[in-house]
Amino acid sequence: MAELSPSRRIRRTPFSARVEVAGVKAYTVYNRMLLPTVFESTEADYHHLKKAVQVWDVACERQVELRGPDASRLMQMLTPRDLRDVAPGRCVYVPIVDETGGMLNDPVAVKLAEDRWWISIADSDLLLWAKGICNGYHLDVLVDEPDVNLLAVQGPKAEDLMERLFGAAVREVKFFRFGEFHFQGRAMNIARSGYSKQGGFEIYAEGADIAMPLWDALFEAGRDLDVRAGCPNLIERIEGGLLSYGNDMTDNNTPHECGLGKLCDTHAAMGCIGRDALLRVAKEGPVQQIRPLEIAGDPVPLCDRAWPLMAGDKRVGQVTSTIWSPDFGVNVAIGMVRMTHWDPGTRLQVETPEGLRDVTVRESFWA
Amino acid sequence: MAELSPSRRIRRTPFSARVEVAGVKAYTVYNRMLLPTVFESTEADYHHLKKAVQVWDVACERQVELRGPDASRLMQMLTPRDLRDVAPGRCVYVPIVDETGGMLNDPVAVKLAEDRWWISIADSDLLLWAKGICNGYHLDVLVDEPDVNLLAVQGPKAEDLMERLFGAAVREVKFFRFGEFHFQGRAMNIARSGYSKQGGFEIYAEGADIAMPLWDALFEAGRDLDVRAGCPNLIERIEGGLLSYGNDMTDNNTPHECGLGKLCDTHAAMGCIGRDALLRVAKEGPVQQIRPLEIAGDPVPLCDRAWPLMAGDKRVGQVTSTIWSPDFGVNVAIGMVRMTHWDPGTRLQVETPEGLRDVTVRESFWA
Repeated sequence: MAELSPSRRIRRTPFSARVEVAGVKAYTVYNRMLLPTVFESTEADYHHLKKAVQVWDVACERQVELRGPDASRLMQMLTPRDLRDVAPGRCVYVPIVDETGGMLNDPVAVKLAEDRWWISIADSDLLLWAKGICNGYHLDVLVDEPDVNLLAVQGPKAEDLMERLFGAAVREVKFFRFGEFHFQGRAMNIARSGYSKQGGFEIYAEGADIAMPLWDALFEAGRDLDVRAGCPNLIERIEGGLLSYGNDMTDNNTPHECGLGKLCDTHAAMGCIGRDALLRVAKEGPVQQIRPLEIAGDPVPLCDRAWPLMAGDKRVGQVTSTIWSPDFGVNVAIGMVRMTHWDPGTRLQVETPEGLRDVTVRESFWA
Repeated sequence: MAELSPSRRIRRTPFSARVEVAGVKAYTVYNRMLLPTVFESTEADYHHLKKAVQVWDVACERQVELRGPDASRLMQMLTPRDLRDVAPGRCVYVPIVDETGGMLNDPVAVKLAEDRWWISIADSDLLLWAKGICNGYHLDVLVDEPDVNLLAVQGPKAEDLMERLFGAAVREVKFFRFGEFHFQGRAMNIARSGYSKQGGFEIYAEGADIAMPLWDALFEAGRDLDVRAGCPNLIERIEGGLLSYGNDMTDNNTPHECGLGKLCDTHAAMGCIGRDALLRVAKEGPVQQIRPLEIAGDPVPLCDRAWPLMAGDKRVGQVTSTIWSPDFGVNVAIGMVRMTHWDPGTRLQVETPEGLRDVTVRESFWA
């Protein structure tokens, strides 16, 4: 692996100083911001995440704030998911599509009030799309990136740790709901969500000045819980089938290809910019779709480009995320497969940088 | 420095395989794509760039293509520079602004025809802004990212090398003009441009399949010219005062603050989205502006966040790019300074991670 050159353009987060002290070994860049990828090692981080609790600097999940009388109208223009029944206090996972139905992002949208949303974005400048649409349609909405920095607390002991800081009420927060809690006199929204299948919370910390005190308090309170600095873990997320925008799908893909067709209420989502394009897909279904895949043999290298998925001489898809799973003893993978070959049990081959490997299409993800 | 974790989301370029063979030591991420930053060392790369010729993989300068009857109208909506007199065959450096006059990008726009532009972008998803505006105003333009990959040939021997591949006519291409040339039977636009002050060209290679043959041919032809793989060099670009979007300016800054006021024909640029906001700035001038700065003493560390610029206890600006210049024997720097303290010769102090340093505002950049 090569080094990452520091510059202001690759933005630090308000937690970066603590992340460095915790011994971060590698980063990726996400929304032009640092996102840690490895502390001890990907495997050691993974084992720890599954049994204890970790604090993740995911400030790179930047917020796009929509505020104003037309905020909910703009939000509905961005997504084919029907948002009419979403009450304030709820989080919704929403595919965002352009006029062709191509995925621009797959954020979690947080409805703060009828006239106010935070969109917690994956890795693409959704801010610019939302601003452009807002301007072009002359909507009465302020579209902005607020000074909100996400800290995730993930792992089986996440509830125990969070209770010590925020009280027992935090245990009552249901999945994909959020509540307002207080820390050092400051209100902050805490949602039961996060980019792992181990359970946990995401704290929407407003104001960079509160970031380090919050980090420090979590580590102070969780010492006996073996709390450690962590980050989204490649093994755990592939086992759990958590998709990664830019890796597993791009603007070339429709939500239906990404297995998000069930989130598309294309008929009802009046105003959605990609609605016309998606109506046909909704009727006929996609011709390729994301599938869990198992790659045979020894651990494969990291997947830094799409690996062709072959049925004999015919290309029938591609692998975009893969890694060796210690717990399952196989290479777990995510790929896009054409409908002719996507049935569970289908045997294919993948062209890895180290040669051809056997692949089996699975029924479901591992976790 | 930490390592950069590979993933498909951080896109490789069609030249990446050659860049690796050439011994790249570090990268940055630019438009979600790999951009090499160091080969031998920043200093060794710099000395070589100033005396020989380098080939740079700058495919990360992605193109936003505007094509269709309203292409020139959309282009004018994006920028306060008056584009009415720009003829096909010309490149123009254009500030791109949002409705508040904030800089969204500072690309080179290439006018291919009356109804067709390529915008060669700095590090922000201008594609999404242009698509959003196009959609909102119902313009008749196709906005897309074509499969065009830029290869820069930079350095005092760039002309000699280019002539060997493209013939003597390439010497006739004037600064910020381009011409159509042929390589292995394929037409490609070649502009006299590039992100250095050493002279050279940028080749707009269309189609990923032509990338490696082009790279190999340049190295084959330039063996006796000591051609090497290179990249935008931090020392050389600061000496030359080449601004970096995301480092020296962000969407918080107007073009006038970036010293680009002379490119803003705000009265004439009818249709420019940020026109109203910029009319006042154009009249009154900015209250802060980018300046060349000299930092006293030994080499300073790399600048990975804004360093406060102080006049006594008062913050009067910030330093955003700096490095030791071997040729000038000082720390060269770029910063934003308030008008009360921006006159050449003004003495200030900067808070570096290693303590306070004396700073002098300079009259002009070094090169």
